[in-house]
Amino acid sequence: MKIISDIEPMRALVNRAKAAGKVVGLVPTLGGLHEGHFSLIDRARRECDVVMVSIFLNPTQFGPGEDLDAYPRKPEADHAGCESRGVDAVFAPDAEAMYATGGLTQITISQLSQTLCGRSRPTHFPGVCTVVAKLFNIIPAHRAYFGAKDYQQALIIKQMVADLNFPIEIVVCPTVREPDGLAMSSRNANLSAAEREQAPALHAALLLAADTIHKTHPPADEVIAAIVAHLSARAPDGQIDYVQIVDPATLADVERTGRPVLVALAVKFGKARLIDNMLVDGASANP
Amino acid sequence: MKIISDIEPMRALVNRAKAAGKVVGLVPTLGGLHEGHFSLIDRARRECDVVMVSIFLNPTQFGPGEDLDAYPRKPEADHAGCESRGVDAVFAPDAEAMYATGGLTQITISQLSQTLCGRSRPTHFPGVCTVVAKLFNIIPAHRAYFGAKDYQQALIIKQMVADLNFPIEIVVCPTVREPDGLAMSSRNANLSAAEREQAPALHAALLLAADTIHKTHPPADEVIAAIVAHLSARAPDGQIDYVQIVDPATLADVERTGRPVLVALAVKFGKARLIDNMLVDGASANP
Repeated sequence: MKIISDIEPMRALVNRAKAAGKVVGLVPTLGGLHEGHFSLIDRARRECDVVMVSIFLNPTQFGPGEDLDAYPRKPEADHAGCESRGVDAVFAPDAEAMYATGGLTQITISQLSQTLCGRSRPTHFPGVCTVVAKLFNIIPAHRAYFGAKDYQQALIIKQMVADLNFPIEIVVCPTVREPDGLAMSSRNANLSAAEREQAPALHAALLLAADTIHKTHPPADEVIAAIVAHLSARAPDGQIDYVQIVDPATLADVERTGRPVLVALAVKFGKARLIDNMLVDGASANP
Repeated sequence: MKIISDIEPMRALVNRAKAAGKVVGLVPTLGGLHEGHFSLIDRARRECDVVMVSIFLNPTQFGPGEDLDAYPRKPEADHAGCESRGVDAVFAPDAEAMYATGGLTQITISQLSQTLCGRSRPTHFPGVCTVVAKLFNIIPAHRAYFGAKDYQQALIIKQMVADLNFPIEIVVCPTVREPDGLAMSSRNANLSAAEREQAPALHAALLLAADTIHKTHPPADEVIAAIVAHLSARAPDGQIDYVQIVDPATLADVERTGRPVLVALAVKFGKARLIDNMLVDGASANP
């Protein structure tokens, strides 16, 4: 497995593979790899001839006071994990190389970025869109793999790819969970023992909401109140950032649940902000 | 010469040419082609194996009340001109095809877009950046050719290409002028006879400014005042939008002229807004 930190050799490697007729898959990550990432890599490995993983803890998608400093960094373990899953090359640039030209350019999709996670993280999605566009230009793969846990991110990237005509297919893969239901996340490593015990309440609250919606289609605000009550009881150390029920395509809040909806929430345990979501009512698990 | 209106066939044509080892050049235009455009095409023809011209009057780079409706449309003449200059294919999509996915995504470079033309046209450069990024993804050429008359546009596109790692080289070509000095522009067609007589004052004022700067390096505001006086005398029907002297790299206003500067101006004759610029003091004609 190659580990490449410079932009031009990375692009050249991809272009050689494509010229040889290979299908190239890309799994973009911030590092801190876990089974969620490895499920994306495994899927790419099954569907593509060549699998590239980018590991870049992109500073521009973290706001002031967010957990950039606390984000798990474990490059050796990440590289070993990639190697064991059959990755062909890891792209691991530093921020100086990625933003050498000043980084004045910003890509925004206001319409999808001002709700859910974007409400408390206004600079997050512009940072994500911009770095993902950069990665697509550096690693011009045929397919890129993202996780459904970051539903809003996946939807926004799909919209960007469509709007800007990037010649890449976005594949969204199901959320991978711990046995107790907690969605895999690099940030789980930053939970205290007590917080880790409470964290499965996020998924449990979503399951409860899905069950209620399936049974009685209550108004969205009733479902939200029930989720908040569940979280308050089962995750008392968590501070709710949002609980929303939205249209899966537009992310606009909905009032009624008798239709496909996305139930999404974010809860902070100290600096570790956990998110989870569930599509309810017959819609597929992918945006 | 092929004329292609759909995105996928256009991209496939470029990819076939690249797979065959051809160097591909792109000249993006709004149509209304004149000798300025043809000089870009001729340069691309000399430097590339395959030359593509896009003709797309992009609505998103025109603000409300601007001259989108008055912009010269002459597709047959444009196609004939391209054919006579040896263009291999014209990409002529309609706005519905280009913005079929909603056009929610916007690319901005605030730092370079809020001065000069961006001051009176705040939505212009986001529209330009976004459509140019789309064109680069639809027509993934090796080189793209732009004119130095639109200095700010060329600088912004270069910054976007560098920041987003687009694998394309931006070639900026000298402004082409009428015998009396007026910079070639599609918008010249919208000048009345009286306005057309006054319009060469823009270039004359720039020459005068360059001469003064070379001789005595006066403060920028004195040079600007002299340009304004010249325009008021020689182009009385013109309404000055801006006259600025700026740093050629940052576009920030400068106070002193004893260094390379860009002298740039915009003057409106009715709805026809003409721009021109000159690099002064040993700097090259390209941004």
